[in-house]
Amino acid sequence: MYREKIKVLDCTIRDGGLINNHRFTDEFVRTVYRALSHAGLDYMEMGYRSSRELFLPEDYGAWKYCDDNKIREIIDGIESHMKLSIMVDAHRVQEQEFVPVDESPIDMIRVATYVKDADKAIKLLNKTHDLGYETTANIMAISKEIEPDLIEALEQLAKCPVDIVYVVDSFGSLYCEQVEYLVKLFKEHLPGKEIGVHCHNNQQLAYANTIEGIIHDANYVDGSLYGIGRGPGNCCLELLIGFLKNPKFKLTPVLKVIQDHMIPMREEIEWGYIIPYMITSILNEHPRAAIAMRKTEDKDKYAEFYEDLRDAID
Amino acid sequence: MYREKIKVLDCTIRDGGLINNHRFTDEFVRTVYRALSHAGLDYMEMGYRSSRELFLPEDYGAWKYCDDNKIREIIDGIESHMKLSIMVDAHRVQEQEFVPVDESPIDMIRVATYVKDADKAIKLLNKTHDLGYETTANIMAISKEIEPDLIEALEQLAKCPVDIVYVVDSFGSLYCEQVEYLVKLFKEHLPGKEIGVHCHNNQQLAYANTIEGIIHDANYVDGSLYGIGRGPGNCCLELLIGFLKNPKFKLTPVLKVIQDHMIPMREEIEWGYIIPYMITSILNEHPRAAIAMRKTEDKDKYAEFYEDLRDAID
Repeated sequence: MYREKIKVLDCTIRDGGLINNHRFTDEFVRTVYRALSHAGLDYMEMGYRSSRELFLPEDYGAWKYCDDNKIREIIDGIESHMKLSIMVDAHRVQEQEFVPVDESPIDMIRVATYVKDADKAIKLLNKTHDLGYETTANIMAISKEIEPDLIEALEQLAKCPVDIVYVVDSFGSLYCEQVEYLVKLFKEHLPGKEIGVHCHNNQQLAYANTIEGIIHDANYVDGSLYGIGRGPGNCCLELLIGFLKNPKFKLTPVLKVIQDHMIPMREEIEWGYIIPYMITSILNEHPRAAIAMRKTEDKDKYAEFYEDLRDAID
Repeated sequence: MYREKIKVLDCTIRDGGLINNHRFTDEFVRTVYRALSHAGLDYMEMGYRSSRELFLPEDYGAWKYCDDNKIREIIDGIESHMKLSIMVDAHRVQEQEFVPVDESPIDMIRVATYVKDADKAIKLLNKTHDLGYETTANIMAISKEIEPDLIEALEQLAKCPVDIVYVVDSFGSLYCEQVEYLVKLFKEHLPGKEIGVHCHNNQQLAYANTIEGIIHDANYVDGSLYGIGRGPGNCCLELLIGFLKNPKFKLTPVLKVIQDHMIPMREEIEWGYIIPYMITSILNEHPRAAIAMRKTEDKDKYAEFYEDLRDAID
């Protein structure tokens, strides 16, 4: 697939940070930044800009806050044409500040929102757009939304200056036909906006669903190194780069950072195809029950987990 | 997806046997047989019927040969409505014998063939069909075939009494649009035959491609427990069962055998998403180079493997 408009964003540090409370070493983040720059990525997401009042600094690493100066420390001295993004949760905006884009190393602000928080998202999108940032609205948990509510949110977003609106399959529950339906629905109600897809890998469909999004004209797609991310993780960046035929993308630097860093890291922290996350996704549920059971002695009692969860939501 | 005609075949013992030279214990094969019977599977594939002249008995376990009596030992005393299949390689037929179907515990003979061996496959299909078996032709390495050759083979198969013809993505190289194309091509040239799909998981697309096959009216689909199979393995049976809405299928017995047997087995033998197999598939190559490098000290040197293989086939 060669389409020059396709932009690839790596969310290794941001979504991967959900597993380790955003405690990646500076050295690792620099290594990833260098590798992705060599690989020709369009964007790298550094983490969240979270409130230190809501999320206490003793509990989290630097990538929960993504201070501009911290980002500058990482990228200093590395040649790169890659843009940087950070994510903000629309429903958790408190005292976070943003300077004008030309005073910041950040290029894009991605606002993660549930449909019900669309007003809060739009307020933040207006503010960050006025400061000169590229902006996205990432609509989470979309497999649980009622269509008229979703359409209302899309129509509000259509009137605000957001550049890109993402379909986010938070529960990893979507099949490819549903991705097609949603991307088309987004395009219909968001004239002139770009569409993105962010898929989770509960059912080993993150990559297939990302391709499906691309086929139906989503131009912004997310991946992460070796699929790192909470629970089942994300679309594997290496698969995406293998698929996209734009010669600017290089697979070798991606493979190198996987062999040197992601394979050893996978021994320390868990992500990927793990049956309890498959179970929450086929039941269209938030992965929290799977996250909790993986911390117990019964972490591999899949049959009981499935039957209990099915009974609980019946 | 509910379509009564869809038949699910489990190839755990057959394709999984390619990793351990078909040396599963009788107890394990009985456990799988019992679990799949409870789960409502349509077919279970026990292994290959190979020539003992070509494959010496000291090198392989019982499931390389699948003697009728051996199969009877396994299924004896277990209530089941599930049918049994075995596979035969068209290009490795030597002294294997087949009794009439009513003297055998086997219901279906699946003939694996390359396009170039279609004549050998048809000879075997005629013979086994005349003995009363259900028959399939599984066309391997399809991503490497030239279309006129493939069509010629399909037109020959159309004239023989084979019941089902499978698209086999041996190299795990197909994307969903290619599966759609091939299933439609098979249907066009095989009027009256059923179509099957057997997908490999090199790029985490086995399940997505199997769904794609189903969408385009392939009614025979293969899966294996936790995806076991050589290298990247197959479509995960648990995902397929989670997707198909026919109430005859039960997920719980599948999850139980995964937690009790497949998770411990995965600690002993390797299969699944492994980068070198991803690399062979994006280059549309047989996995043999990946199999070889995984046995060396350099088994995680992905970047070098990719560059070397790419140069070698350039």
